Amino acid sequence: MTEIQPFKQIVLFGSGRSSTFLIEYLLKHSSQEKWKIILADADIELARQKLNNHPNGKAVSCDIHNSEMRSGLISQASFVISMLPAFLHILVAKDCLKLGVDMATASYLSDELKAMEPEIIAKGLVFASELGLDPGLDHMSAMKIIHEIKDKGGKITSFKSYTGGLVAPDCDNNPWHYKVSWNPRNVVLAGQCTSQFLESNELKYIPYNRLFKEAEDINLGKFGQYSMYVNRDSVKYIKLYGLEGIDTMIRGTLRGKDYCEAWAVLIDLGLTDNTTRLSLPKSFTLLDYTNGFLKGSGTEYKTRIESTIGREIRQQIFDQIKWLGLFSSDCCKLENPTPAEVLEDIIVKKWVLETGDRDLIVMQHEIKYELNNVPATIHSILYREGTDDIRTAMSELVGLPLAIYTRLRLNGVFKHQGCILPLEKEIYLPILAELEEIGIRFNEEIIA
Amino acid sequence: MTEIQPFKQIVLFGSGRSSTFLIEYLLKHSSQEKWKIILADADIELARQKLNNHPNGKAVSCDIHNSEMRSGLISQASFVISMLPAFLHILVAKDCLKLGVDMATASYLSDELKAMEPEIIAKGLVFASELGLDPGLDHMSAMKIIHEIKDKGGKITSFKSYTGGLVAPDCDNNPWHYKVSWNPRNVVLAGQCTSQFLESNELKYIPYNRLFKEAEDINLGKFGQYSMYVNRDSVKYIKLYGLEGIDTMIRGTLRGKDYCEAWAVLIDLGLTDNTTRLSLPKSFTLLDYTNGFLKGSGTEYKTRIESTIGREIRQQIFDQIKWLGLFSSDCCKLENPTPAEVLEDIIVKKWVLETGDRDLIVMQHEIKYELNNVPATIHSILYREGTDDIRTAMSELVGLPLAIYTRLRLNGVFKHQGCILPLEKEIYLPILAELEEIGIRFNEEIIA
Repeated sequence: MTEIQPFKQIVLFGSGRSSTFLIEYLLKHSSQEKWKIILADADIELARQKLNNHPNGKAVSCDIHNSEMRSGLISQASFVISMLPAFLHILVAKDCLKLGVDMATASYLSDELKAMEPEIIAKGLVFASELGLDPGLDHMSAMKIIHEIKDKGGKITSFKSYTGGLVAPDCDNNPWHYKVSWNPRNVVLAGQCTSQFLESNELKYIPYNRLFKEAEDINLGKFGQYSMYVNRDSVKYIKLYGLEGIDTMIRGTLRGKDYCEAWAVLIDLGLTDNTTRLSLPKSFTLLDYTNGFLKGSGTEYKTRIESTIGREIRQQIFDQIKWLGLFSSDCCKLENPTPAEVLEDIIVKKWVLETGDRDLIVMQHEIKYELNNVPATIHSILYREGTDDIRTAMSELVGLPLAIYTRLRLNGVFKHQGCILPLEKEIYLPILAELEEIGIRFNEEIIA
Repeated sequence: MTEIQPFKQIVLFGSGRSSTFLIEYLLKHSSQEKWKIILADADIELARQKLNNHPNGKAVSCDIHNSEMRSGLISQASFVISMLPAFLHILVAKDCLKLGVDMATASYLSDELKAMEPEIIAKGLVFASELGLDPGLDHMSAMKIIHEIKDKGGKITSFKSYTGGLVAPDCDNNPWHYKVSWNPRNVVLAGQCTSQFLESNELKYIPYNRLFKEAEDINLGKFGQYSMYVNRDSVKYIKLYGLEGIDTMIRGTLRGKDYCEAWAVLIDLGLTDNTTRLSLPKSFTLLDYTNGFLKGSGTEYKTRIESTIGREIRQQIFDQIKWLGLFSSDCCKLENPTPAEVLEDIIVKKWVLETGDRDLIVMQHEIKYELNNVPATIHSILYREGTDDIRTAMSELVGLPLAIYTRLRLNGVFKHQGCILPLEKEIYLPILAELEEIGIRFNEEIIA
């Protein structure tokens, strides 16, 4: 009698927009790999749509806060992927630990998850985090360059890395040069902290009120012109990437030209605050709302903005703000919202990816190093457009690294235990190699 | 046989600087009222000092997070006062509810406490909040004027009320005209939200980054010159004070001249943020720290501040900032602090009330109204200096309203149940009357 290899169950929590390519990949490999894909979502119809009647897929309605449902699914799984909002991973992780199942996410490794590591190791499990785009592909592609330079005996002196989720140039038809391809809440709350980085051996701190004002122009030649604001904490990546002794360490986010300059005005006006619920009449107009934040009265809005924030703004910048509808009689139906909630309500309508719109992911590493006392610079650029508003580059680049990791892990390729990130050759090399086969590759240029 | 009336136990949690006058008052009335005062504090020595061997006082060491200790004390009490940090009141309140004991605090009525009201009423209990200075005496003195105008048939059109905890003019020897008489953390975090108020029938919103820049000069004649920034939420007081239909409602905080202008520079520099822990070397100098927030290099600090925040500052303002020691080699020993924690560490040293220093409380209500179609304005001012750095006006004006309320309540004067604030005549009139006997009175002036 020949032994029949049983199917392995992969349970994937969350079938939202970032899961499209991940689900496709898992289904595509399911027959050969002998996988059953259990797709669990609060919205079972959405899960069914994504599975498209594939014989190896099964949609399950799941209330993630129902611990019986959760553990019922996880107890049957060989592997668990969580594409839930980041703060919910811990619910899944605790069950995975109890039931002895490996898991993976595309989100930052949280302190809470990290604290579970001794127990994870004791059970011989692997919980992998930061396997998406940013964090994820940024780590993998950076570590590949860093290891290559170090292996040759080179010394890295400066590391700058920028990523942006944007809109393809020929689908860019608004003055912000931006459409939302991920979580709009995060777009509104971006940078609300003191950002810190290392520049020419000095620790530098930028408060939120200056972050977007001090955005830097980034010229990527044929790959476009961008504006870059620095991320929350670049300093911690010095240790994470093994770059102790480096002079400069900056990680940042790319936006279209003029985006940061106009967003800085919204910040100065107070329209991004998420700490305070405002007293507002029911179904207020955006004009009445905006008037509450502006000095003076009347319809000379550009002048009133300037007098409110204490500086002049270019006509282009005013046009961007006006384009959002802030001086219109459009109604907002949110009850006692925070300013950030009002702005999110605006941008999900104004910055929507319309049918057929293609998004764009741009990632650049600029790494300076010395090899045999000769200084050199590597520019490594990933430029990837989406197919349409569903098959986005965001979904592809968040989902595929995680998908490839899952396949390799289930085939026993990796030997690690505990909480892992894709920082080691053993993990990132096969993932980058498979992405390259699909056509996802970095353009590398070395300037000696 | 004559019946001997038993002693009632008052349990007071917290013997910190704001409790001085409260404890004194309770001890002073203890023999006549037949009270035993149980003073519970984590620091039993501090509690003993405050009781000064009074025969009706007893110091108890208490870890407020130890529920047995807490309920052990409360189960013996006739009345409980919490002078703990505001977020801890709820622990005491839950025990008081369970054990059927009335309580009072000088803090804002929290949503959490308010949610317990049905149970509080079901047990026939009274939990009183906002019985200090601000909130407390501000409500009582305002409601007295409001009720007097309404009782005469007048219509109130504008309500402005400002309070400041400051330093007496002859003890004012620093360029900020400020010393700390209460919680220094709250001084650093003041106004970190979107402040909202009603002005000429328009709802107005001021974000944190403009709050101190837009401070208003307030001239109180012989009572001094001040700078005023608006409080978090003035709008909710319209309903609380029964002022529906009013045109203008503004509550604010008073600071010395030049204080707000200089504090606005600290905000712009990013030195008040409390959301981010900074990467910093151990025992860093304040100069190195400040350099991290400034553009450029070199020792032209005034110019560097100006270039960083994008506007010019007066020499006086720069002198205030320099006086804090931000450009000195003084060390800060905090590990990975937030900017707010560094600033708190600075001001508790620089703005300390020195031995013999007297603090100052200033409160002003400016109320406009129409009586028989004739407009008029009431200015009502409380100006109260402390005795010394221990017997502060802050401690007196926070503690005495609460102390008087406690005596009246234990004597059965008030008939309310549930969560109460001192907004009704029955409560505020006897408290204000007793304060006036002690010499705490408002100077009232009516301008027709």
